[in-house]
Amino acid sequence: MSENRVQSPALRGKIMSAEDAAAFIHPGDNVGVSGFTGSGHPKAVPSALARRMTAAQSAGEDFRVGLWTGASTAPECDGALFKVNGVSFRTPYQSDPECRGRVNGGEAYYADAHLSHVAQNAAWGHYGELDVALIEVAAVLEDGRLVPSTAVGNNQTWLDLAKRVILEVNAAQSARLEGMHDIYAVGVPPRRAPITIVSSADRVGLPYLRVDPEKVVAVVETNALDRDTKFSEPDENSRRIAGHILDFLRHEVKKGRIPANLLPLQSGVGNVANAVMAGLNDGPYENLTAYTEVLQDGMLDMIRSGKLVCASATAVSFSAKALADFNANIDEYRKRIILRPQEISNHPEVIRRLGVISMNGMLEADIYGNVNSTHVLGSRMMNGLGGSGDFARNAYLSIFMTPSLAKNGALSCIVPMVSHVDHTEHDVQVLVTEHGLADLRGLAPRQRARLIIEKCADPKFRPALADYLARAEKGANGMQTPHLLGEAFHWHLRALKGEPM
Amino acid sequence: MSENRVQSPALRGKIMSAEDAAAFIHPGDNVGVSGFTGSGHPKAVPSALARRMTAAQSAGEDFRVGLWTGASTAPECDGALFKVNGVSFRTPYQSDPECRGRVNGGEAYYADAHLSHVAQNAAWGHYGELDVALIEVAAVLEDGRLVPSTAVGNNQTWLDLAKRVILEVNAAQSARLEGMHDIYAVGVPPRRAPITIVSSADRVGLPYLRVDPEKVVAVVETNALDRDTKFSEPDENSRRIAGHILDFLRHEVKKGRIPANLLPLQSGVGNVANAVMAGLNDGPYENLTAYTEVLQDGMLDMIRSGKLVCASATAVSFSAKALADFNANIDEYRKRIILRPQEISNHPEVIRRLGVISMNGMLEADIYGNVNSTHVLGSRMMNGLGGSGDFARNAYLSIFMTPSLAKNGALSCIVPMVSHVDHTEHDVQVLVTEHGLADLRGLAPRQRARLIIEKCADPKFRPALADYLARAEKGANGMQTPHLLGEAFHWHLRALKGEPM
Repeated sequence: MSENRVQSPALRGKIMSAEDAAAFIHPGDNVGVSGFTGSGHPKAVPSALARRMTAAQSAGEDFRVGLWTGASTAPECDGALFKVNGVSFRTPYQSDPECRGRVNGGEAYYADAHLSHVAQNAAWGHYGELDVALIEVAAVLEDGRLVPSTAVGNNQTWLDLAKRVILEVNAAQSARLEGMHDIYAVGVPPRRAPITIVSSADRVGLPYLRVDPEKVVAVVETNALDRDTKFSEPDENSRRIAGHILDFLRHEVKKGRIPANLLPLQSGVGNVANAVMAGLNDGPYENLTAYTEVLQDGMLDMIRSGKLVCASATAVSFSAKALADFNANIDEYRKRIILRPQEISNHPEVIRRLGVISMNGMLEADIYGNVNSTHVLGSRMMNGLGGSGDFARNAYLSIFMTPSLAKNGALSCIVPMVSHVDHTEHDVQVLVTEHGLADLRGLAPRQRARLIIEKCADPKFRPALADYLARAEKGANGMQTPHLLGEAFHWHLRALKGEPM
Repeated sequence: MSENRVQSPALRGKIMSAEDAAAFIHPGDNVGVSGFTGSGHPKAVPSALARRMTAAQSAGEDFRVGLWTGASTAPECDGALFKVNGVSFRTPYQSDPECRGRVNGGEAYYADAHLSHVAQNAAWGHYGELDVALIEVAAVLEDGRLVPSTAVGNNQTWLDLAKRVILEVNAAQSARLEGMHDIYAVGVPPRRAPITIVSSADRVGLPYLRVDPEKVVAVVETNALDRDTKFSEPDENSRRIAGHILDFLRHEVKKGRIPANLLPLQSGVGNVANAVMAGLNDGPYENLTAYTEVLQDGMLDMIRSGKLVCASATAVSFSAKALADFNANIDEYRKRIILRPQEISNHPEVIRRLGVISMNGMLEADIYGNVNSTHVLGSRMMNGLGGSGDFARNAYLSIFMTPSLAKNGALSCIVPMVSHVDHTEHDVQVLVTEHGLADLRGLAPRQRARLIIEKCADPKFRPALADYLARAEKGANGMQTPHLLGEAFHWHLRALKGEPM
């Protein structure tokens, strides 16, 4: 196996165990790892590092690192390191329960960020110096070029910035990933040039990652699949939300605002997003394209059916079944899929130019259309912003969607005032729940409020929302954006006490 | 005079009085006017229209229009029309007291928007159809091309979209503005191409506006100066804020993150911005550039001194004295100043590529670095977002600044939770008050809070802010972003009652 995957003689000489490789990571180091939504993360070294941390901690030593990723990883990376409280700082997106617990418990600092910003933040030194890059690749070519794995993320940036590099060469990833990627770096000002992508299918870079072989201190061979990202069939609410969105897109085409093959699609992750993709796949569309962040089962179905002719992303994130299909038919998929650095997949320049149709989930929206994507009841971090801000602000259409109720109907996802703002009303054009779709484009706050209450809120919460709005309009703060600041969070306070909103 | 300024024979035949021209505007029309921060707005027709409105209203008729602009105009435009309650809908930025009163009084709908979004929003029909474009120009050439005035704003978009066009040809504007502008349209997806601006000085379009002469229903000759935008010498607080920013920029250069001539500057309007420009003008810098929205007295000083070699903007907004200098020396200034459509001056693609240093004022920030730029006590609209969001999210550095206190020290501009969010913590890298500068880059919320309280809050409010943070951290909502939702707005509620915070 190793003969095939590590062809560079220089790097073959650095093959070692995960345990030995982990010894190159020291207490206080900043470590930039590969990995995006459960794909392409290092599978072996993090656990070996966690064991070293536990040993050090037993000896009374503080062994923690700063952990920079692409986005979320998996139990054997984020999970292993946070479980032993081995991370002092984490950026940007995460979804691991161990990580979430430490972050919300105040044991680790977590800096959430727009995913397109992370590479430049790091290059500019906002997170300090990068000591180690720990990157999974599919293969090392004879001349040292690296065949990227199932996620590109910030890998090239980590390889460029790090003082030391550890490569995990994963034989479970298809060697035929070679050629699927498009690695392009924008650099830092003042020497940046236009990114010349004018359609999702355009390639502007090269299909390989580059690394200075002198910096590579270890190569670890692994053979482990990516996370099985469960794919569940859409439930009734998701199908209804998808139905409203599909009706709306039909309307936009009919109005002549967008072409019959729509504009490039961006879809967040989850059940609702899957339902929208399934609906598009069953619909009358042809020659659809995607310029998105993560490619999931739904879009893979659309490629297989021929509806989706090109999908650009920074990572794939599949169920075990879809991953097997992806690997079995990768020569065909390679014609339709391009994986780019997340700085490019999420770049405002390209998203705005292409006029992406952006669809993302949320935790709650308020009656004015401000959206909370991250903080449960204003304080507890769920997963982070991800690319929602990169897409929503720059898209042709920014759609946010959620079922209208949470916690078995106790909580309303439409509230008087969101307890945390991730997307302001200016970046939220369309809100959708199972009850309906509010097209907020061109509306002022008081107009938005009436429409959101009418179209999106669950009927049982509509009277209370309308009452809040009516009293706010009559109150001392009943101006451009009417609010009752003394009770704006009463709904959340009830929820904090475990009561229905 | 008219011989010189309206050279097109076809359009000369359409010269008429403002009163006659105003008759082309009907009740319920949407009217797109020129004008940006008191410059380049129509000077005569709005007042004539307001007189028609008053007459119609006396006869019991509802005569109101939708008013779309570049940004703020002046008393003879926004002021005249709002005074007679003649506007039902207004977008995007405004600063007129009559307008603000109607908007906050619930008599007019106001849709605030990122200034870079307005042209595409209109082109996509978000605001309905555009009936009339009412555009000030400096001259009409023989072949019908238009020499733009002191503000470009959305003028080309209004000319393209409108069913009928009224031109005001203002002899008080220098005819030698010709050649200063760079008019370029990005169009709508899916046919957009890269905007090939790679430095502030690049020109990618043509120096003229175009209009279908068949659509021009009236040409009105005027002779009136732009608004005298008062320029006051920086006060002590402004000088201190500027001092902190100048120290910080020096530090960034020393760290090698930005070149010795910095990166292109964007500066919001007002006293603090002026102080920063004055400081840069007195500093050791050479070959500075600006990629900004509005060019004010401060930058004109820097061009005159030779420090600023190129300034790109969408409008100038000068004091009477600076305007006289601008007009007297326009042949020199034309070598250094480029005026572009606001879609380009504020375009995320260009701002991000150039790595602009963005400096904007604000009303308040919270301890986590969320910024309120628009809503006094969460409800009363001041002026609108302007381009702050276009710049802040895409800049190399996004700096927000304010004196630490308002209302003679009764109110703190650093609060536990902002009463309205225009810029989320992810888009706010640096906060500055007269007390100090908080460099928030790469920090998590709990780290940001300590730094903001220490560096930016007025000393008399620091204990209460620290107490809020400490109790929030211990409370049920003491997680990623600790908050006490039951008292997050207590400071604002006291202010609403007229008490000190």
